Amino acid sequence: MKEKEFITDIKNILNSKYIGDDCAYLQDLGIVITQDSLVEDVHFSRKFITPYQLGFKSVMVNISDVCASGAKPAYLTISLSLPDDITENFIREFYKGAKAAAEDVEIVGGDITGADKIYISVAAVGSTTGRRISSRANAKIGQKVIVSGNHGSSCAGLKELFTGKKESKFITTHLQPTAQRNFAQKIAANIKEDYAMMDTSDGLMDALSAIASESNVLLSIDFDKIPYDKDLEKFVNWQDLIFYGGEDYQLVATVPDTDIYGTVIGEVKAGNGVEIHYTDKTVLYTKSDVEKKLFKHFKEKE
Amino acid sequence: MKEKEFITDIKNILNSKYIGDDCAYLQDLGIVITQDSLVEDVHFSRKFITPYQLGFKSVMVNISDVCASGAKPAYLTISLSLPDDITENFIREFYKGAKAAAEDVEIVGGDITGADKIYISVAAVGSTTGRRISSRANAKIGQKVIVSGNHGSSCAGLKELFTGKKESKFITTHLQPTAQRNFAQKIAANIKEDYAMMDTSDGLMDALSAIASESNVLLSIDFDKIPYDKDLEKFVNWQDLIFYGGEDYQLVATVPDTDIYGTVIGEVKAGNGVEIHYTDKTVLYTKSDVEKKLFKHFKEKE
Repeated sequence: MKEKEFITDIKNILNSKYIGDDCAYLQDLGIVITQDSLVEDVHFSRKFITPYQLGFKSVMVNISDVCASGAKPAYLTISLSLPDDITENFIREFYKGAKAAAEDVEIVGGDITGADKIYISVAAVGSTTGRRISSRANAKIGQKVIVSGNHGSSCAGLKELFTGKKESKFITTHLQPTAQRNFAQKIAANIKEDYAMMDTSDGLMDALSAIASESNVLLSIDFDKIPYDKDLEKFVNWQDLIFYGGEDYQLVATVPDTDIYGTVIGEVKAGNGVEIHYTDKTVLYTKSDVEKKLFKHFKEKE
Repeated sequence: MKEKEFITDIKNILNSKYIGDDCAYLQDLGIVITQDSLVEDVHFSRKFITPYQLGFKSVMVNISDVCASGAKPAYLTISLSLPDDITENFIREFYKGAKAAAEDVEIVGGDITGADKIYISVAAVGSTTGRRISSRANAKIGQKVIVSGNHGSSCAGLKELFTGKKESKFITTHLQPTAQRNFAQKIAANIKEDYAMMDTSDGLMDALSAIASESNVLLSIDFDKIPYDKDLEKFVNWQDLIFYGGEDYQLVATVPDTDIYGTVIGEVKAGNGVEIHYTDKTVLYTKSDVEKKLFKHFKEKE
């Protein structure tokens, strides 16, 4: 898949101001909207994930996108395309998981069709009433970089699944992630200035790099301040899991001193890219460094 | 696919008042939302449809759903899952077609992922401002049954494609259908009472039967009044194409005498089901008759 090139093509054809953030902010309607798909044997394998977890995760990744925008998740639609061997029990478990992840967000429609593999596409709508909406282009010099939760756990869980392990805290994080509703709500309902926010679906470094690039700033990050589960250190290249692992569905935001609701990991400065301060060295990652590294990481995953 | 049973299961699990119409009407947000998918080798074949037509049709079927609700189509998101052999040219043509079908409706997001076949899921949002929103449960005794356009043309086009024909007016209707925006807008912006409206994506009979069943009424239809292209009569079982063909994306509505914007084909009466008056006979179709017939029709299509 040449996804990055395709997206550039699509942006050129559509010439839309909306394409860029995880959600599109439709000001005239007072809503945000997002849509994300999960494809069997691309994003998940029936070997590893239960139907309940699949329903749960499909909904949660979209709720996470709405949270990243600052809007209040309100409604969902789910399109399911399913092979002939899918049973009614699969459907029941899938929707139980979907409903559990949705909590007070109502599932209001969608469709169901045949296919040769499982395809799931979820659209989510959030209400912007009483919330300030984020943009990855909004980071301003002097703002603090804050994050929710632990980073790297989901990818550690994926690695454990590949080794044949069935259950662990990391595996639960991978198969049944939690969107950071409270973190998002506290910022979006209280903050008095524009801010950037993204989820870490494609990894912490991807989010930091996208905010730096779209906002034309340098994000200066202290590695020691990034929260992670200490058991992560047992994994080979564990620092890569933190930066490039993805699917943690934590949030990263740039906010003023008055709105610190998570862990401060750094600061927005003049410059370009992402600078990581380790105890013994400082490494600057440009946008193209990150893209190469992400690409390499994905190649290794396959 | 046991779609009908699955949908009953899903309704029971979700227990949502929104599931039923083609769009969910979200009153607190002043919008409707719908989502529909097209799957390669289930809904279309690359042998017959060009990338431009595929983009066009994917968008149009969702705009048609929004029109059927009475709302004004406003925004779209598109999720594309694509095999490795898809070229940049395919993407460009697909989005050109999508944009042409969208007209003033803005495409504001979505995602793009890998897959082994082409899978397209589109979500569409409509604005309800200044419009009265339809429900298939709204038909009332005394209202007239009206339709837009011609019926049966799309399925005639599909049959021609199967015989090796490449171009015809019927094939164009099948590959590049037109949503009935004006018909919908005239009703929804002017009508002073509740009304039922559906599109004929699954066939005219399916729409009539769904309205009759959900509204608990009898729809009494004069066959001679149903508009169709006279060249349809060259096809075997051409009357079946009119009733069961599907994919014409015309609209059917039940409206008071004061709001006749299309062709009157019958009337809403006390009773249950759909009654078709031919010159020589009258046939009553119950909901279960229609479901059996639809099922048989789909079996024959395969």
